[in-house]
Amino acid sequence: MDDSMNPPDASAAAHNPVDGVLIAAAGTAHTWARAAPADRARALAAVADTLEEARPELIATADRESHLGTARLNGELTRTTFQLRLFADQARSGAYYDVRIDRADPNWPTGPRPELRRYRTALGPVLVFAASNFPFAFSVAGGDTASALAAGCPVVVKAHPGHPELSRETAAIVRRALAGAGAPDGVFALIEGEQAGLDALRHPALRAAAFTGSERGGLFLARIAADRPEPIPFYGELGSTNPVVVTERAAYGRTQEIASGYAASLTLGAGQFCTNPGLLFVPAGEHGLVERIAALLRAAPTAPMLGNRIAEGYRTVAEQLSGLSGARRLVWPADDHQPAPRLLAMDVDAFVAAGSAASAECFGPLGLIVTYRQLADLVPVLAALPGQLTASVQGELAESSELGALTAVLADRSGRVLWNQWPTGVSVTHAMQHGGPFPATTTPTTTSVGSAAIERFLRPVAYQGVPQDLLPVPLRDDNPWNVPQQEQKQGVVDAFVAQPSNSAVAM
Amino acid sequence: MDDSMNPPDASAAAHNPVDGVLIAAAGTAHTWARAAPADRARALAAVADTLEEARPELIATADRESHLGTARLNGELTRTTFQLRLFADQARSGAYYDVRIDRADPNWPTGPRPELRRYRTALGPVLVFAASNFPFAFSVAGGDTASALAAGCPVVVKAHPGHPELSRETAAIVRRALAGAGAPDGVFALIEGEQAGLDALRHPALRAAAFTGSERGGLFLARIAADRPEPIPFYGELGSTNPVVVTERAAYGRTQEIASGYAASLTLGAGQFCTNPGLLFVPAGEHGLVERIAALLRAAPTAPMLGNRIAEGYRTVAEQLSGLSGARRLVWPADDHQPAPRLLAMDVDAFVAAGSAASAECFGPLGLIVTYRQLADLVPVLAALPGQLTASVQGELAESSELGALTAVLADRSGRVLWNQWPTGVSVTHAMQHGGPFPATTTPTTTSVGSAAIERFLRPVAYQGVPQDLLPVPLRDDNPWNVPQQEQKQGVVDAFVAQPSNSAVAM
Repeated sequence: MDDSMNPPDASAAAHNPVDGVLIAAAGTAHTWARAAPADRARALAAVADTLEEARPELIATADRESHLGTARLNGELTRTTFQLRLFADQARSGAYYDVRIDRADPNWPTGPRPELRRYRTALGPVLVFAASNFPFAFSVAGGDTASALAAGCPVVVKAHPGHPELSRETAAIVRRALAGAGAPDGVFALIEGEQAGLDALRHPALRAAAFTGSERGGLFLARIAADRPEPIPFYGELGSTNPVVVTERAAYGRTQEIASGYAASLTLGAGQFCTNPGLLFVPAGEHGLVERIAALLRAAPTAPMLGNRIAEGYRTVAEQLSGLSGARRLVWPADDHQPAPRLLAMDVDAFVAAGSAASAECFGPLGLIVTYRQLADLVPVLAALPGQLTASVQGELAESSELGALTAVLADRSGRVLWNQWPTGVSVTHAMQHGGPFPATTTPTTTSVGSAAIERFLRPVAYQGVPQDLLPVPLRDDNPWNVPQQEQKQGVVDAFVAQPSNSAVAM
Repeated sequence: MDDSMNPPDASAAAHNPVDGVLIAAAGTAHTWARAAPADRARALAAVADTLEEARPELIATADRESHLGTARLNGELTRTTFQLRLFADQARSGAYYDVRIDRADPNWPTGPRPELRRYRTALGPVLVFAASNFPFAFSVAGGDTASALAAGCPVVVKAHPGHPELSRETAAIVRRALAGAGAPDGVFALIEGEQAGLDALRHPALRAAAFTGSERGGLFLARIAADRPEPIPFYGELGSTNPVVVTERAAYGRTQEIASGYAASLTLGAGQFCTNPGLLFVPAGEHGLVERIAALLRAAPTAPMLGNRIAEGYRTVAEQLSGLSGARRLVWPADDHQPAPRLLAMDVDAFVAAGSAASAECFGPLGLIVTYRQLADLVPVLAALPGQLTASVQGELAESSELGALTAVLADRSGRVLWNQWPTGVSVTHAMQHGGPFPATTTPTTTSVGSAAIERFLRPVAYQGVPQDLLPVPLRDDNPWNVPQQEQKQGVVDAFVAQPSNSAVAM
């Protein structure tokens, strides 16, 4: 991969099929970015409608390729069309333009202020690396695609090899629906193969990339994005172990509820969720909680995993974790090759001694239970964890004085803190945050789920003294699209007392 | 620099003075992030007040070290204290928390929605690389420092060696003012020396960095930030050539006004501005505009530059540009070593043939005039320019039909589009955008001037089902700080019609 740093070679690009895709995307970027919000919204809704019409065929293909089961896949497709409609709504509202208008002000404290109008416009062509574990919701027509299209960016999806047929069927639907809704050609494309993905990531016309997958793969791609002649934003969601802390009182008062909640969350979808709670901290006096969890996991059915490579990775990491000094196997399949649920336990000293090896993500239904003595002892241990998508507490309100420091440290290390709930339900809403400190994501300032995900694909542009006829529509006084426009009042800096200055020079 | 990729060595760190600074910053991060907005605002205002009290001494030191003159420096200090107060206001308003509250909704289309509350909190310790050309406004107590402190981040400033005494004086004032206002120890520190800056950038406790300076230096540092074991956001403002396009009618109707406006903007501060208009496109029939500009530049005084290294860089790049095929020297000092204004001209074909060499930034008072035949011919030339902080048009309203494509392409390549104004006035307001596509900045989704600059130093965290007592103050229902809270109404996705789903599983 040493040639990864070379600038693109124009003659090579001419023979590279990805080049045509990116050129087409770039050619349509301006039109799509300037389209009326209602037109983009209609196009996204058309994609949702057309996916719904094809639901039976899509579910059949998805189940054949992913083994996730029709119940789960139907729910996921519903989530996917909901996401498309949520981002259609986002596009239609125009709030994401974040229009700010400063009228000219001759008395502005630092010197006469010109008229300034600022909005956020589309970044340009976006490359989406599809994930395997959500063949709908984080794949071809998933949240990254929906939010980038809503922002006004053309999208090129690099298909995940785990579900090639579904990727092609979905892409055909997306293309047909977009074309039917009048979207310009080139606004959406599917590419396949690792080399095509790398070529697209290095293409000079690309303006951003989004990724959901492993830490290793995501970091590799993030560094390619940073090392390009023109670095571009890279939004990688890389996963986490999603620690859950059970307090003594909760373990005592809700033993069975917590055991069954944990076992269900851990084994949901064969544990193949970024938010899978792989790490469970329980008090040393745990009131039989651990044995109840173990019993439930022993009885849990073994679900097939997404593919052989993932199943093999699961077994390998499980083996590594179980080999750590102080780790005990509480639940382990007789046949080592089965992707059955596994449960390990160690005490907090062994966990600390093992360092980063103990907090490595194990993609699959493996739980590592860590027993602690006092909540206060646990706080520095949690502070040293790598960044997390989620962190949860199973506690009791009466303990809240002890829990302040605990929830604070969990918020410092994660993007979402849960109380008496389990992390595997990622609701698609306005206040959802799916992100977190590295390695949960490469860009902790953003989210990849929820309506704020659109912000990743926008950049601000200001217009200074530009006549109405030359302004982009959202910035015009007549505001024909009726987008929110925020006008700052003069004298907003009310604490400011103009200081004597010898200079009339604007900075 | 091969050792740059190694993870930090604890034993080496113990002997590294930067380590103590970063540890102290990290130790105070939580307290500062959770401080009441009014407390952070008061601390920022105290810094502004204390800087004003020391104005005479600060100006004297700044002038001795920067040669920028007391008029300019007084104006810049006014801007700097204004910025601090603007960000104090930002902190106080609490709008930057971007609080979003979703109440629980059992009928949410994708399954029962939990209660979710999301806000943006401080990223953690921020490293600010000070610039040389704004010894106040982009240095120790400049916009990066003010916006990061307002966001709730501890700040470590790497001093610019161009004004070491001023950096120390300013830092002493900042520290004293913050301490007087009750800010915790460790919330601000100054470090000096290139090695200290690199050590800080690689320190595991650092969470983000901001930089204003050269493309080369910024890119070098950006890649260190990306290659850390834990990559961090890097906000680099690297500069640009700030193209100005003069239309035929404007050249005819306002020859003298444009000539004097251009000459003034080009020579302001010895041309040492990121927004200096180094590139001027004029029509082939230019009505004597070029000669008038030349006459003004010949008569302009030679101002001393910030330092010898910058003056030498200016002469070197000027020499390279004047050696391009087709370049003519219209204004050139008899003594080649003087940092006097210089003016070159070439036609658009020569400009295109020279490729990226012709659009390289020349930091100093050098203008390159490019003559074009038709505006329509110019559009693809502008589209091929590297990313810019600003792009300006000198035109006439009657031409607006021709100017649509022109302003659109300038907006695609820049962060700020100006009409009949000059780019060197960067007003500090809410709608200002100081950023743009690479290489203007490394992160085109952000700004380094204006109130939106605070957004660089925040990351979102969501709380799911967390009791009131355990929520951060801005998310609580009683909202004692009275920050804006946005509550989404149920059924916001009004286009959504719930689809049959066989699954009750939340995704």
